[in-house]
Amino acid sequence: MAISAHEEPEPKPPRVVVFGGSFDPVTLGHLDVIQRAASLFDRTVVAVGRHPSREPLFSVSERVDLLRRATEDIPSVEVASFDGLIVDYCVRVGAVAIVRGVRGATDFDCELHAAHANADIRPRIDTLFFPTRVNMGFVSASLVREIASHGGDVSAYVPAVVAAALARKFHRS
Amino acid sequence: MAISAHEEPEPKPPRVVVFGGSFDPVTLGHLDVIQRAASLFDRTVVAVGRHPSREPLFSVSERVDLLRRATEDIPSVEVASFDGLIVDYCVRVGAVAIVRGVRGATDFDCELHAAHANADIRPRIDTLFFPTRVNMGFVSASLVREIASHGGDVSAYVPAVVAAALARKFHRS
Amino acid sequence: MAISAHEEPEPKPPRVVVFGGSFDPVTLGHLDVIQRAASLFDRTVVAVGRHPSREPLFSVSERVDLLRRATEDIPSVEVASFDGLIVDYCVRVGAVAIVRGVRGATDFDCELHAAHANADIRPRIDTLFFPTRVNMGFVSASLVREIASHGGDVSAYVPAVVAAALARKFHRS
Amino acid sequence: MAISAHEEPEPKPPRVVVFGGSFDPVTLGHLDVIQRAASLFDRTVVAVGRHPSREPLFSVSERVDLLRRATEDIPSVEVASFDGLIVDYCVRVGAVAIVRGVRGATDFDCELHAAHANADIRPRIDTLFFPTRVNMGFVSASLVREIASHGGDVSAYVPAVVAAALARKFHRS
Amino acid sequence: MAISAHEEPEPKPPRVVVFGGSFDPVTLGHLDVIQRAASLFDRTVVAVGRHPSREPLFSVSERVDLLRRATEDIPSVEVASFDGLIVDYCVRVGAVAIVRGVRGATDFDCELHAAHANADIRPRIDTLFFPTRVNMGFVSASLVREIASHGGDVSAYVPAVVAAALARKFHRS
Amino acid sequence: MAISAHEEPEPKPPRVVVFGGSFDPVTLGHLDVIQRAASLFDRTVVAVGRHPSREPLFSVSERVDLLRRATEDIPSVEVASFDGLIVDYCVRVGAVAIVRGVRGATDFDCELHAAHANADIRPRIDTLFFPTRVNMGFVSASLVREIASHGGDVSAYVPAVVAAALARKFHRS
Repeated sequence: MAISAHEEPEPKPPRVVVFGGSFDPVTLGHLDVIQRAASLFDRTVVAVGRHPSREPLFSVSERVDLLRRATEDIPSVEVASFDGLIVDYCVRVGAVAIVRGVRGATDFDCELHAAHANADIRPRIDTLFFPTRVNMGFVSASLVREIASHGGDVSAYVPAVVAAALARKFHRS
Repeated sequence: MAISAHEEPEPKPPRVVVFGGSFDPVTLGHLDVIQRAASLFDRTVVAVGRHPSREPLFSVSERVDLLRRATEDIPSVEVASFDGLIVDYCVRVGAVAIVRGVRGATDFDCELHAAHANADIRPRIDTLFFPTRVNMGFVSASLVREIASHGGDVSAYVPAVVAAALARKFHRS
Repeated sequence: MAISAHEEPEPKPPRVVVFGGSFDPVTLGHLDVIQRAASLFDRTVVAVGRHPSREPLFSVSERVDLLRRATEDIPSVEVASFDGLIVDYCVRVGAVAIVRGVRGATDFDCELHAAHANADIRPRIDTLFFPTRVNMGFVSASLVREIASHGGDVSAYVPAVVAAALARKFHRS
Repeated sequence: MAISAHEEPEPKPPRVVVFGGSFDPVTLGHLDVIQRAASLFDRTVVAVGRHPSREPLFSVSERVDLLRRATEDIPSVEVASFDGLIVDYCVRVGAVAIVRGVRGATDFDCELHAAHANADIRPRIDTLFFPTRVNMGFVSASLVREIASHGGDVSAYVPAVVAAALARKFHRS
Repeated sequence: MAISAHEEPEPKPPRVVVFGGSFDPVTLGHLDVIQRAASLFDRTVVAVGRHPSREPLFSVSERVDLLRRATEDIPSVEVASFDGLIVDYCVRVGAVAIVRGVRGATDFDCELHAAHANADIRPRIDTLFFPTRVNMGFVSASLVREIASHGGDVSAYVPAVVAAALARKFHRS
Repeated sequence: MAISAHEEPEPKPPRVVVFGGSFDPVTLGHLDVIQRAASLFDRTVVAVGRHPSREPLFSVSERVDLLRRATEDIPSVEVASFDGLIVDYCVRVGAVAIVRGVRGATDFDCELHAAHANADIRPRIDTLFFPTRVNMGFVSASLVREIASHGGDVSAYVPAVVAAALARKFHRS
């Protein structure tokens, strides 16, 4: 079939993806992945995982709130939190795939194992990796927390609402 | 907004992705990526790159033919060949993203550099990585060529049409 | 000397290897390495390291017990626990090598450093790496603990005695 | 069962391993792996693979000859060459495992894929990795060829018979 | 311009570099990097970072003291401690670059992200990596702490003053 | 000794470094490393290695010429070509270290082995790695050759003199 002369195939049912993570806090690296997912899929659910054993900087509800404000202008993005396995959460919200940002070879090895585990548990849920933008590869929530804890300027790495929340958390509380 | 109570967003225009490569020959690892892309996007163009400097086992037209026969039952997949840069080819066919299978950390580093180069040349064309299925990570076209050249059985690694073509190439010529 | 016509060399003294680790809990990935080691060497000692600083899910004696029950049908395998450096433990039990499973490039870098350190401390104790089976690369004790803590099904990843112990640990206590 | 009080299990049948490679030429890194394999297994077959497509420095028979002379004092080592897949060669010589030296994370990824492919083709043939000695990690046949081609001193990296053969190859022909 | 006949360029102003880290405790691997930096640059500041959240083996002042005694014979080396971001500390001491030892691919990925973050925050501060000596690649402060905690001999891995301090810490307290 | 109150140590003799490579052609990534080396050391020799076995795009003398024109405004940089081992060349020009740009984990493993080999051959010649700038990690001479061979625009990746030379090479010859 010639590419220039094909009929459009019938539109598929809405495709939903889940971008799960800690988002403590959401960075511009995360936001870039969210925007790219939102432009490719019909609904993107950004889901904050609850891990009772870890001591976060922001509570789950604070993280959800910051994500909502950071993504409020991106249509088809929703923010939520979840307990349990991410693949089970995907089934609950009707998602077809998990999306993840990957920043380098070390990241990748770990993400590949997680993708294989998730595929083994729920074969119908796929995993897709978005390579981070070239100028975002070094941006991570832990970098942001470290800079902010020293009173440094993180405005190049996080949405404005997060920069303000970090300033309140570290300096004005 | 509660996830269980959202309105469906308006369907987006058809999303086309390009899976480019050498496909010398197409393996079941490639086919798995093609099927996963086809289930997520509206059209998947599998595009055989012409590299005049390399000595392939199968000619470009043989590779296109094998891909067409291997994918004939997957709706919304087309097969073509291209010259030049893959990002320029994406623009010509209206694709929004390049898809790639990635098999391990070493692969990933190289693919990440290619993704960054492509994003720099054509910022509107994204790149998505599909992690290979756990039991396909070792399958590659070069492995298949090596086994087949020794008369080994490659039927677990390639579509049946490719196994037959390899048998003709190595044993009956 | 022609390979098909050699005399059998004299049998060597029994070769003992040590597979050390945390085994919190033992997985089918560990069990695969144990079986492979047991088929190649005369005695395989599976040794649970005591690390006072870490907070395990199962106590050392529970882990030893689960390992013993999981390996009871593999001849020439013994289970024990040890304090101190693994190379010193190897000397105590007359082992010639440490065996380790390796799952990916990131794992490998870390394991290579440990092997070099052990060879420096006790040059007569060698280290051997068993690459994990292709479909076990993602299975790890931490994955198992995470799934089990959410009430998920881990029976594909651990011996039956471990699945039962996890169920008791998380749901019936 | 207490470790200090076990009965010795019955000796197993002789265990044969194959160390396959190009050995163009054999280095002290290879020789270290050969010695370690020879101390752990009953017979170690060092097997030079014939790859018609590559242009070697030394012919297969020269490489076999250099290996034989470099290993003549190591009991239970034999040297041979082979065509076809290494797993099929293992079956022919009654080997239970392939041994490989691994030098770093990049090496490892590639070797892991080969091990998975070999296990898929012949599940009864295992693969074992020997981590290179800490001071041998940078030694490779290609490094040796490069230094020797410039008239440099390679005596720290190869057996004496190989150093002599390289000197003849590059300077006295 | 012929290399053998150039005029010497005018000497540049003193170049200061900072080698920051935890140094808990300083190892011979660290000391090797310090000596190499000291031979290439005019002043090398070895700076112990204060991280309130981590539980060290030695206090900051103990670590500074051990570093001072270990480096007292190397001219142009100073030892200090710092709070806050290392790039800000570099500005305070007039340094032009951060130096880091790197031991393997996994290390490198992490160090590369840190270098990119530091360059983004302070573009005038460069980062330089010293590859660890071949026989030091496995030596790390955590290895030293582990061996010493079991009463093992660490004298091959740390300066004599550190070995003595570890003996006091673990055995005579 | 307080850092703010030290005496300046006596200036050291001029420190010369060698940045060796193929430079086929020089990219802005190379130029960035050259500028950074030139700001840290007294003389930087950029040295094009002659490898008779490879088929380059530009001849050695063309590559030297392009490098000279690209670096003519950077004081203390010289351009040359060399035969043989780079460490021997370093000795001839009085260099104390080799500098290399490194772009990712896969690069690094290979560069680490080369650094160890060079240190083994000539212990007095050190090796230093400059991590590539975050937005240059994907730029390589092979990427540039590939884009230019398809008539693409490489002006963002190479100095203007190289872009012009590539245009002549591919389109106007």
